[in-house]
This record gives sequence, structure tokens and C-alpha cells, in this order.
Amino acid sequence: MKQVYFDNAATTPMRKEVVEVMTAVMQNNFGNPSSTHSFGRHSRALIEQARKTVANSLNCSAGEIIFTSGGTEADNLVLRSAVRDLGIKNIISSKIEHHAVLHTLDQLAEEYNIELSFLNLDSKGGIDTNHLKTLLASDKPTLVSLMHVNNEIGTILDLQKVAELCKASGALLHSDAVQSIGHYPINLQQTPVDFLAAAAHKFHGPKGVGFAFIRKNTGLKPLIFGGEQERGLRAGTESTHNIVGLSTALELADKNFEAEHQKVKDLKSYFMTSLKDAIPAVKFNGYSGDLEKSTYTLVNVCLPVNAQKASMLLFQLDLKGIACSKGSACQSGSNQNSHVLNEILEEADLQKPSVRFSFSIFNSKDEVDYVVSVLKENILSTVS
Amino acid sequence: MKQVYFDNAATTPMRKEVVEVMTAVMQNNFGNPSSTHSFGRHSRALIEQARKTVANSLNCSAGEIIFTSGGTEADNLVLRSAVRDLGIKNIISSKIEHHAVLHTLDQLAEEYNIELSFLNLDSKGGIDTNHLKTLLASDKPTLVSLMHVNNEIGTILDLQKVAELCKASGALLHSDAVQSIGHYPINLQQTPVDFLAAAAHKFHGPKGVGFAFIRKNTGLKPLIFGGEQERGLRAGTESTHNIVGLSTALELADKNFEAEHQKVKDLKSYFMTSLKDAIPAVKFNGYSGDLEKSTYTLVNVCLPVNAQKASMLLFQLDLKGIACSKGSACQSGSNQNSHVLNEILEEADLQKPSVRFSFSIFNSKDEVDYVVSVLKENILSTVS
Ligand SMILES: Cc1ncc(COP(=O)(O)O)c(C=O)c1O
Ligand SMILES: Cc1ncc(COP(=O)(O)O)c(C=O)c1O
Repeated sequence: MKQVYFDNAATTPMRKEVVEVMTAVMQNNFGNPSSTHSFGRHSRALIEQARKTVANSLNCSAGEIIFTSGGTEADNLVLRSAVRDLGIKNIISSKIEHHAVLHTLDQLAEEYNIELSFLNLDSKGGIDTNHLKTLLASDKPTLVSLMHVNNEIGTILDLQKVAELCKASGALLHSDAVQSIGHYPINLQQTPVDFLAAAAHKFHGPKGVGFAFIRKNTGLKPLIFGGEQERGLRAGTESTHNIVGLSTALELADKNFEAEHQKVKDLKSYFMTSLKDAIPAVKFNGYSGDLEKSTYTLVNVCLPVNAQKASMLLFQLDLKGIACSKGSACQSGSNQNSHVLNEILEEADLQKPSVRFSFSIFNSKDEVDYVVSVLKENILSTVS
Repeated sequence: MKQVYFDNAATTPMRKEVVEVMTAVMQNNFGNPSSTHSFGRHSRALIEQARKTVANSLNCSAGEIIFTSGGTEADNLVLRSAVRDLGIKNIISSKIEHHAVLHTLDQLAEEYNIELSFLNLDSKGGIDTNHLKTLLASDKPTLVSLMHVNNEIGTILDLQKVAELCKASGALLHSDAVQSIGHYPINLQQTPVDFLAAAAHKFHGPKGVGFAFIRKNTGLKPLIFGGEQERGLRAGTESTHNIVGLSTALELADKNFEAEHQKVKDLKSYFMTSLKDAIPAVKFNGYSGDLEKSTYTLVNVCLPVNAQKASMLLFQLDLKGIACSKGSACQSGSNQNSHVLNEILEEADLQKPSVRFSFSIFNSKDEVDYVVSVLKENILSTVS
């Protein structure tokens, strides 16, 4: 059967080169990076080289990159330590952050006496900058946590502007950049963000590895205590092969950036045009129909199907070999609506099925044609 | 140059079959296990199969296995949540635990109002069971945290006895089993331990993956918050290839247990006899010279070299291609003595170099002969 993978915001297929280099590391470099003998030193060298590659990509120093087991851990590390160790009393975030941020904030609010505020959003999921300015006027030690690219509707944050606002008012800024790193360049010499979270599997690297950028001298402490790995900020034997996989994937993403960015953007654009032609009543949620204000990697569409038949839609697509998603992957098992769409859609549209299609360099226009034709057939038969 | 890896307690070379299966997973099963489409379901099936394999090995139910990024994370998960969510007020441990336990306990003692007691040890690193009984008499909610097999001197805990004592007095028991799982069978139907920590890279699996056993209905909560992965106990996209690597490595360890156990035990025994013959003044630290009271995988030897020249010894061995370690890998970069040896050795022996040699199925008697001859040469030239 034909198989089309349009769920690249959930996770991406790995690049062949990444699998190859990881296999070689597993075969040849098994030493514990903390061991001082030659087996250990070889592993250590691989990890430190990987750290430099990541730091080069972001224009920061290698010591500011802390490898973690993924984006979620990086978010947790930054948020928990900011509250526990840096004395943050006031956190400003938004209701359309990923659960890795939202659920961590809920938990911190249970454990600590912190004030938690959520920014007003416009009807497309953009933040209200004036509201941010008002909230930044607090004289409590403040952390702002806002994602760079939203994983469901693709909204891009003006990171430069928000970082400057935070800096001007003395607040720390954390940005969950899991959907942007490997897809959008960030220059940390220019953008005064304090913390970032990233995950390799969103840019054709392995699952179970990511990193936190932690700007020098912020004074964070570990989430996971034990050995002195990662300059004392993250205990546990390093996953050497995963870390090398991450840096290789990022290096390739950077190297091929222009061409690959353009290719995926063209696919998104082609998908939108074709879909609109086929099903004129389709709507693009949030800014996701806007090629500048939302990421080139995804589009979130509201389909003109009545509530009754909506629930069958993803199932039908799956039967046709099409992978896409409703909400984010970690919610897709549930019947609840996406917390993101709940924030921005009007009631009538919430009754209709919204589906996220997300693209990568491994997709093609043929695949778009196939998916649009299946959607058209499905929607027409459902509407009638 | 000849290369001999006698540092298998720090980490082990991966089995070829494990690397192969992981490579295949990375190539063919990239779906996000939380996605409901076919790509996701295939990954989910791999993870749930891996969970069953691990549960079978330990004779527990699959729902009691929570995959983590390693042994350290599993220790942190259990200890932090026991204090925060189960209301533990009293923790009994020992000073020769791994730093993943000790540093986590220190941190928890800073954050929470808990009582922390350390068991008396005999001169070989065995725990004082009477002291344990006395401390268990506390009427505060109590957690005992004692490792199954010590990573530096190999002492084996009588897990059955300790678990029964804890159970009888209503205390919870966590055991860091990072050095035992994959090397010693544990039957969780028989042994009423509440929590365990394990790491795949200690039994020829990949680095950066491990698991916690969490007995049903204990009420633990996550260390890392976010998505609903691992039954809500550990958020973050699963490292599918690493998890499959872990279960494959454990399955192979179980399958070949008799023969491999015997082979490694014979190597240890041969090493001890040869070394004693070559350097009669050598001492085996703790119980590590005892083939029953300490693990068959390692021996910790105190070498008759004066303090001055001791510091050069590991360096000399490294030059000869021999990998072994002083203390545990995470301390081996430092000049401090091992916290474990500090607890049990007399002052005179602390001045001499102690070295841990740890073995695996990939080692041979030839390698033992080589290492013993290099040691002999070195020690004799140093003594003279
Ligand atoms: C925006 C965002 N943040 C955090 C995460 C969590 O990353 P991971 O699952 O790799 O821990 C994801 C993806 O799942 C994401 O899209
Ligand atoms: C007894 C013990 N506990 C915990 C750990 C930590 O395991 P990991 O480094 O895989 O997190 C180790 C090994 O480093 C160990 O030997």
C-alpha cells in the first residue's frame, strides 16, 4: 500500500548519514566518556566535538550546551531550576505552549509559591505584546517561557523582540525551540534569550536526545543529580551515539538549509493551493496558512465535515496509508480536542475535524497529490 | 598496540546483535510511538514488546517497567517522588552508594525536611543488619535505598533479606540494581522490593537508556513532566531504538546466562590467582576477592606501591593499552580518592593505589596474562 508520512512535526525519519554514523559509534566507541583511559577519551572527544558543532550552529559557546534526553527534559531542567535555584517568583507563559512546558509549570505551581500568568493571544495564536509589557512590569524575579515555533499551528514568535523586551525589564527568557532548531537559524550572539530547549528527532536525528542552551553564569542546577557529567548540570552516562547523531543531524540541516527550506516551503505552499482548489471550504487554522508568520513545515487545516463523521476521518486516512495528526502526538491517543485549538478556534470550527499535515525533505509533490485526492474523495462522500 | 578493556563496570561493549537491531529500528521504525497512525503503532508495538521482555526477565508486570534515560534518572525519579509525593520523611541508605543516589539524597535533604541516616558498614563494605533493624524502628514514613551490587567493590546485598525486613516494618525499599540487572537474576514475585533502577550500558546494551521498576500502586509521580508517555510517569518522546536495544541486550543476557556467568567468573578467578602469584603482597579490597559475596564481574585490588609512584600507575597501564579504573568512571577524572574506598580502607591502604578491574564475556585469559605481566613489571620496577 502507498504510505505517505505527513506527520513530521511529531517526529521525522532519520537521515541515512545519521544512522550510519551512530551505528559506527556503537560499534567502535563504547568507552564511558568519563573514563580517563583511551577508550573513554575517544568517546569524550566525540561528545565534545558534537557540542562544538551545536554551539557553532547557534553561535554560542560550547559550555552553554547541555545534552539531555530530549526536549521535554530540557524544558523541565530549565523551568524547575529557575524556580528552585534562581528564585523566580513570577512566570509568564501562554496557554498554547507544549505540555512539556505547561504541565511542568502546573507542577511547579503546586510545589512552589509562584505566580503564573498566561499571555492574551490573538485569534490566530499570536501573543499580545502589550500584555507582555504590562506583565513584565512586575517587580518579582520573572521568567518568561514562550515557544519559538508552535508545534500544532506553526506560529512563529518574534524571538528577537521578545528577548529584547525581557532583557530590558530584567526578566529571564526561556524558549522551547523544539520545532525551530534544525529548521530556523538562531544566532545567540544577537538574540539575548537565556535558555532554549531542542530535540534531535524533530530534525531527522535520533529520538531520546536533545539539549538545553543555558547562557553562561545563569546559575542553573541539575534536574538529575549524580555524576559530574555535562559540567555538573546533567548526571548520567552520556548517550554517545545519540549525541553524535544529534550533532550530525544539525550539521546536515545547516549545510543544506537553503535548498531544503525552499523545498519544504514549496511543498506546504503546493499542498495549500491544491487543497483549497479541491475543497474550497477548507480553512487554515491560526497563522498556519501564512507562509511567513508560521513555520514552513506544517499546516493545520479545518475540514468542512460535520461532527458526526469527523471522528472517522483520521481513521480513514490511516487506512489509505496517510499519516497526519490531530493535535500533538502526545495527545493523539485521546479524544480530547487539542488544547491549542481550544484556545484559538471558534466553537463552530471546534466541532469540525482539524488535522495537522507536516512536511519534510523526504516528501514529494506526488504525495501531496495523493493526500489531496484522498481528502477530496473523503470529504465529498462525508458531506453528501 | 594491544588493547585490553577491563573496565566493564564503567560500561560494556555492545553486543553485535544489539547494534544490528537498533540500526534496523532507526532505519525502519521512525514513527512517534504516541502517534495513532500505522507509523506510530509500529513503534508503540516495539516499545511494548520491549517492556514485556524486561518484565518477563524480572517476573513483574509490564506496567511496572518505566523506561528512562539511564540508571541515574531512574534513581532520581524514585527518590525524588518518594519524598515529594509519598511523604517519605526518613531515608536510610549507606555511604557507599553510587553518586546517583548519594547526591540526589543530599539535594533532597536541602529541599525537604527529611531525616537521612547511613548504615554502619563492616570493614569490607557489608551493611550492619542490626543497625538497619534499629533504624527501621522509626515511626516516620521510611524509604530504604541500598544498592544490589556495589560498582566499586562488588559487594552483593542480600536483597531478599533486606526486602523482607523493610516489608515487615512498613518501609519502602529502593535498590539501585544498575550493576546487577543483566548479571544476576531478580524475581520480583519473590523479592518484595518496591523500586529498582537499571541501565542498559552495563549489560552490553546502549548508553542513555535504563528503566525503573515501580511496584504497582505505589503512587509515584514523574520527575520529567509533559506528555503522557510511560503511563504518565515519564514524559518525552521515547528513544525507541535505545529501548529495543535495552530489551535485546537483557534478553540475550538471560538466554546465555549460565555459560556467560561461568565464563566471566572463571576469568575473575583466574585473574586473582595469577595476580596473587605474580605480586603476593596484593590485597583485594572489600569482599571483592570473595567469589560469592561479591559480583563475578569485578575485583578491586590494592597494589603494593608507594604513594609517590602510585599516581603514575593508571597512566602507565593506559600507555600499555590497558583500560581499568580508579573509583567509578564519574570520579575518574578527579584526583580524589573513591568515596567508597574512603569508607572501608585503612589509612595505610588508602595511600596505595587501588584499581578496579572488571570483566565481561568479551575478555579472555590471554588478556588476563597480559595485564598481570604488565602489572608485575610495573610494580616491581616501582618498588625497586
Ligand atoms: C514544541 C515542543 N516542545 C517539546 C516537545 C517534546 O520533545 P520530546 O518529546 O523530544 O521530549 C515537542 C515534541 O514532542 C514539541 O513539539
Ligand atoms: C551502581 C550504579 N548506579 C548508577 C549508575 C548510573 O548509571 P547511568 O550512568 O547509566 O545513569 C551507575 C553507573 O554509572 C552505577 O554503577
